[in-house]
Amino acid sequence: MAVTILKGTVVSAPALGKLSIWENGYLIAENGVITGVFPTLPEQYAGAPVEDFGDALILQSFADLHLHAPQYPMLGMGMDLPLLDWLNAYAFPTEARFADPDYARAVYGQLARELVENGTTRVCMFSSLHREATLILMEELEKAGVTGYVGKVNMDRNSLPGVLEETTEDSMRETLRWLDECQDLRYIKPILTPRFTPSCTNELMAFLGKLSAERDLPVQSHLSENTSEIEWVRQLHPDCQQYWETYAKYGLWNSRTIMAHCVWSDQRERQAMAEAGVTMVHCADSNQNLCSGVAPVRTMLKEGVRVALGSDIAGGDHLSMFDVTAAALRASKARRILDGWETDLLTVPEAWYLATSGGAAYFGEQPGFAPGDPLHAIVLDDSALPQPHPLTPAERLERCVYRRQSGAIRAVWSAGRKVYTAE
Amino acid sequence: MAVTILKGTVVSAPALGKLSIWENGYLIAENGVITGVFPTLPEQYAGAPVEDFGDALILQSFADLHLHAPQYPMLGMGMDLPLLDWLNAYAFPTEARFADPDYARAVYGQLARELVENGTTRVCMFSSLHREATLILMEELEKAGVTGYVGKVNMDRNSLPGVLEETTEDSMRETLRWLDECQDLRYIKPILTPRFTPSCTNELMAFLGKLSAERDLPVQSHLSENTSEIEWVRQLHPDCQQYWETYAKYGLWNSRTIMAHCVWSDQRERQAMAEAGVTMVHCADSNQNLCSGVAPVRTMLKEGVRVALGSDIAGGDHLSMFDVTAAALRASKARRILDGWETDLLTVPEAWYLATSGGAAYFGEQPGFAPGDPLHAIVLDDSALPQPHPLTPAERLERCVYRRQSGAIRAVWSAGRKVYTAE
Repeated sequence: MAVTILKGTVVSAPALGKLSIWENGYLIAENGVITGVFPTLPEQYAGAPVEDFGDALILQSFADLHLHAPQYPMLGMGMDLPLLDWLNAYAFPTEARFADPDYARAVYGQLARELVENGTTRVCMFSSLHREATLILMEELEKAGVTGYVGKVNMDRNSLPGVLEETTEDSMRETLRWLDECQDLRYIKPILTPRFTPSCTNELMAFLGKLSAERDLPVQSHLSENTSEIEWVRQLHPDCQQYWETYAKYGLWNSRTIMAHCVWSDQRERQAMAEAGVTMVHCADSNQNLCSGVAPVRTMLKEGVRVALGSDIAGGDHLSMFDVTAAALRASKARRILDGWETDLLTVPEAWYLATSGGAAYFGEQPGFAPGDPLHAIVLDDSALPQPHPLTPAERLERCVYRRQSGAIRAVWSAGRKVYTAE
Repeated sequence: MAVTILKGTVVSAPALGKLSIWENGYLIAENGVITGVFPTLPEQYAGAPVEDFGDALILQSFADLHLHAPQYPMLGMGMDLPLLDWLNAYAFPTEARFADPDYARAVYGQLARELVENGTTRVCMFSSLHREATLILMEELEKAGVTGYVGKVNMDRNSLPGVLEETTEDSMRETLRWLDECQDLRYIKPILTPRFTPSCTNELMAFLGKLSAERDLPVQSHLSENTSEIEWVRQLHPDCQQYWETYAKYGLWNSRTIMAHCVWSDQRERQAMAEAGVTMVHCADSNQNLCSGVAPVRTMLKEGVRVALGSDIAGGDHLSMFDVTAAALRASKARRILDGWETDLLTVPEAWYLATSGGAAYFGEQPGFAPGDPLHAIVLDDSALPQPHPLTPAERLERCVYRRQSGAIRAVWSAGRKVYTAE
């Protein structure tokens, strides 16, 4: 049996707004599965090798529940445009390049490495519509040590015909081929991915809903990001009272469904999320960059909606989930200002929970470093920063969220495997 | 005569919203003073050594017009608190540590290096109330190659008595001593710095106004950051209709005055700024972190107010002015959302202008790389990033603003001197 023992200042998020802290604690896993965090080394592990990180922070690694891999090359561009213009001018032409497997291999290799180096070990990710590039993305993530779900995008209308659009028939056939081809991967699994309601015909939506039920496949898409988009969906589906119902009516709305953004989801739509157990992915930077608005995250949490965070590259401009966490904090303050100072801001422990435990919940994990869960962890050395006073672990965590520290991540574990060590 | 010739993709901001671009251009300085940017090497420089940076971007370096040096150790902490609580819990106790010159020397050396490495070569900076530490700060900045103004802070009431507060008499005496002691520095000059109206007695304000007039000294302070602060000022100065008048009545309101924040400045206060030629420093991250609000920057620009950007560490959590520029862009989108999508957002060329030319104007420089101005420049190599398509220089600049690239800054010039070269 392989035992992993990490010693340091262990900080985890066992509940929303709560931190568990063990100074000089021992985080232990057997065969990659956490057995617990202990204040002293339990007797049964005496003599086992301990990786002692001194005073460094040992944290849960991140779960990034919404990002577009083929938009990685355009990260940080076109931000002066609103969503629908930005898609046509930037996102679609960039995604179209992934028809080329060599380009896909090079870009996705770089993306996978950057994810791991930044401590993101679980993802739910959009690929492009290209089957071959999607498989390459899954292989590169698996090779780098990332875990989670990747979806070949389905889009058979209202896209860029001749550049980035499938026929309905192609979309179905390629989806089935892709599902066949990716079944040998161990850590990266498929997720059905209708791009969003405007890009999928009813026939395609019905096919995906049926496929999801037959093969027990999860689903990811976008919801209520932007007011123009919502109006468009209303015109496309006059029979649906609200956007979410365009997914629900095709069987794409359940506890394994991920919906990104939900900026404009009102009480009724939020209730539908809470009741179905849909996971809402908050993409704060993206929503601000594209002037979409500010999602009512605090209200959603109060109403029992499952919430996780997403970088949403390349609507979002940050791949590092430290930055994404800080963006969620800032967005909660924008929300507070928008609401006339009525709404409570998110605290650092709350945002940290969403970035780690909140996302991990989608993969069936318990919050915090829970016994029985796979070991996903990062070691962060913040000793190069000046000290204003002897800092508590909670203060150190806050500073690490806000303050980018090149090279501070010393090591990363993903599903029990050490996948990154700083040089 | 020393000639500096830099070759690359030269991009400058000659006017708000405008970029001048020379691909394969030559940026030339003689004895540290810019002579021009040329598409080919002028004949008179034939044979002179050329520093050829290939396709790298050659950009104006940054001007950071508002930051608190003694808050550098607490960068990224205490962000869940509003301004006045945050000052008492975090900022004041941290600043108090600068009574110790050894601590000051170590921290300020690190800060100065980090500024230069991040391409910030001009600053208007608050020190603490400590005379000795202020002189150390000025020396460390000068040594690292930063230029600009530093102020010993004056604060003789409503602070932390016994921890961080002066008597009126001490404040005056120490200010005069500091002015004597710092006069041999060449690149870092003194600026009078009443912390903000609530921390200065009328007697001290009058003394500073008189000193400013007698010795032709510039002034920096804070204005209308937070609604509680404004209400407090109203109680302290019932004779003044608005906050700005508490500075104006003591002779601290003129074209060499810098006022940070101005989040809540209404039309009348903005008009007073425009008429006096006061420079307003927009600190977007800080205003959001501390839930102060979102400054009406677009409106100020239309009304002819001089605007620059500030990192405002440690209310702001970013020292890099690339991040500060991105924060200003994001804030303009928050402003747009707050205003019901009525207000235009800032474009990248506009925000870039504010971060470079806007701040440089305070030091008497013309916008862009103007002949006759001292050479302040950075060389930025973005070649490690993936290419979605052949990018224009403007797209590359946008990406550099949004996307942090560790190690991308290859070299920095400040007032004609090469002050940083990447290893």
